[in-house]
Amino acid sequence: MIVRPYAFGVDIGGTTVKLGLFRTDGTLLEKWEIPTRTENDGANVLPDIAKAIAAKLTEREMEPRDVEGIGIDVPGPVNEDGTVFKCVNLGWGIFNVVDRMRELLPSIPNVACGNDANVAALGEMWVGGGRGHQNVAMFTLGTGVGGGIVLGGKIVAGAGGAGGEVGHMCVNPDETTPCACGNYGCLEQYASANGIVRMGKLMLAKSATPSCLRGLAGMTSKDICDAARTGDEMGIEIVDRCGEYLGRAMSAVACTMNPEVFVIGGGMSRAGRVLIDAIRKYYERYAFHLCKDIPIVVAELGNDAGIYGCARMIL
Amino acid sequence: MIVRPYAFGVDIGGTTVKLGLFRTDGTLLEKWEIPTRTENDGANVLPDIAKAIAAKLTEREMEPRDVEGIGIDVPGPVNEDGTVFKCVNLGWGIFNVVDRMRELLPSIPNVACGNDANVAALGEMWVGGGRGHQNVAMFTLGTGVGGGIVLGGKIVAGAGGAGGEVGHMCVNPDETTPCACGNYGCLEQYASANGIVRMGKLMLAKSATPSCLRGLAGMTSKDICDAARTGDEMGIEIVDRCGEYLGRAMSAVACTMNPEVFVIGGGMSRAGRVLIDAIRKYYERYAFHLCKDIPIVVAELGNDAGIYGCARMIL
Repeated sequence: MIVRPYAFGVDIGGTTVKLGLFRTDGTLLEKWEIPTRTENDGANVLPDIAKAIAAKLTEREMEPRDVEGIGIDVPGPVNEDGTVFKCVNLGWGIFNVVDRMRELLPSIPNVACGNDANVAALGEMWVGGGRGHQNVAMFTLGTGVGGGIVLGGKIVAGAGGAGGEVGHMCVNPDETTPCACGNYGCLEQYASANGIVRMGKLMLAKSATPSCLRGLAGMTSKDICDAARTGDEMGIEIVDRCGEYLGRAMSAVACTMNPEVFVIGGGMSRAGRVLIDAIRKYYERYAFHLCKDIPIVVAELGNDAGIYGCARMIL
Repeated sequence: MIVRPYAFGVDIGGTTVKLGLFRTDGTLLEKWEIPTRTENDGANVLPDIAKAIAAKLTEREMEPRDVEGIGIDVPGPVNEDGTVFKCVNLGWGIFNVVDRMRELLPSIPNVACGNDANVAALGEMWVGGGRGHQNVAMFTLGTGVGGGIVLGGKIVAGAGGAGGEVGHMCVNPDETTPCACGNYGCLEQYASANGIVRMGKLMLAKSATPSCLRGLAGMTSKDICDAARTGDEMGIEIVDRCGEYLGRAMSAVACTMNPEVFVIGGGMSRAGRVLIDAIRKYYERYAFHLCKDIPIVVAELGNDAGIYGCARMIL
């Protein structure tokens, strides 16, 4: 039972830490950022957060006993007890984030920690694209492809912290270029912002079809989605291929845990209809008949999904 | 809290219903079977079970108040509240099994119902190949391919009852022959007892390699696995292909929920080492690095997995 009026959500990224002060009814009162200091193997990251929270309490004349707890997400695998397994972007090794944070702020002992993509899925379930549901599968199409699985309102962290790592599902066993993870044919190689550009360049090079994308210096995923939206044949083909890989991966998730809703987030999700339609076309082809009607929606919280999900973890 | 000394597990198949009387500490005291009467849209199936349980209580001079509850599994999709969505093999339409059973045996109100493959996974987690774990993914390679996902000791039924329907994951988008479900390229088309035979015949027809499998009238999955075990080149190739599809599907499950252990059950699992080695080879190729070491074990309970899992559902 929630008895205290406030909670903090802390979304740790490779460059900045986003912090949110929430009322425990879910209202975001204030959000702000501090830099992520990754030097010295990221030794300052958690102390900086503890200081920021302590300063906010002083500024607002709040007491630690007014705070229900602190939810934290990190850019890397985390298991259920809050142990991280190397957050490369932060310089971190293996240690328990929950225990460390409790040492730094002993007056607020209720601490939870999750993977950023998993926690974003929880935030979207709570007040975003997945609200009203308890079973959500989220695919976050950013620089890479992350994901989060929420079952019965709880994050599926996975025994080794790899729950929701949908970006590394193999969707093309014939791929000859390795993914950053070392495997071949991961979803991330086709459906991330970088992936669709890489795939688009290859498709353009193999085809003679005229396209507004040809000769674009520094073609971006937005260029490709914009081209598709304006009817450019190659743009449509590239987005269609991306939708095929995503739709197939989502059908595999559906055969595993049959969510109530799929949420598509990350920068690529700003492509909107043109991308969702391509995903839907292939999802319906590949999905098991009981799952074909599952809605596929765009995420609504943008960069705030993390702090919302963090707060939700402890509420 | 469990306070009564006995529980029943009831595994409903298309031909027979297996019943188990358990002590609530998990000991199987007795098991027996009754025929599944599928005539009249299966209207007799649940009444027959109620009669069998009532007769067993009388025979053993037990009272309904000595029974903690009845767990039931059915060969078809079931959602979390016990509603079945057409069990084709039983002639059933859509109705709530838990409610119906309570009407038939009001003296034992604690009833749970699950899908047979999901419940078998729970049984294997409890006392079989997955014991000691709470997060298990089971693949059942029988006439078709079923599966069950157990997370935190609980079955993942899925919002529409399709949790663990791993047999209908698309592993070959280029397939031109439809699966029984209507889709193309489902795992079941290659890794079930029927599927490996179908695939084996196609591979034999396309190859000139000598094989002990050629000219076998009524080649079975066992023939293929036996051939592989004795070093027959085509037998090895067919089992290898089956292992590739299974390993890839399992790697997709791992990216979704990262289990502690994979359990392989069903008639095909009797192939043992030769099949597990083929699966392992491809699983390790396709799995995300954090998941590559997850053990892959053979199921241990055989046809009793269902009654064990059923009992476990209510304990």
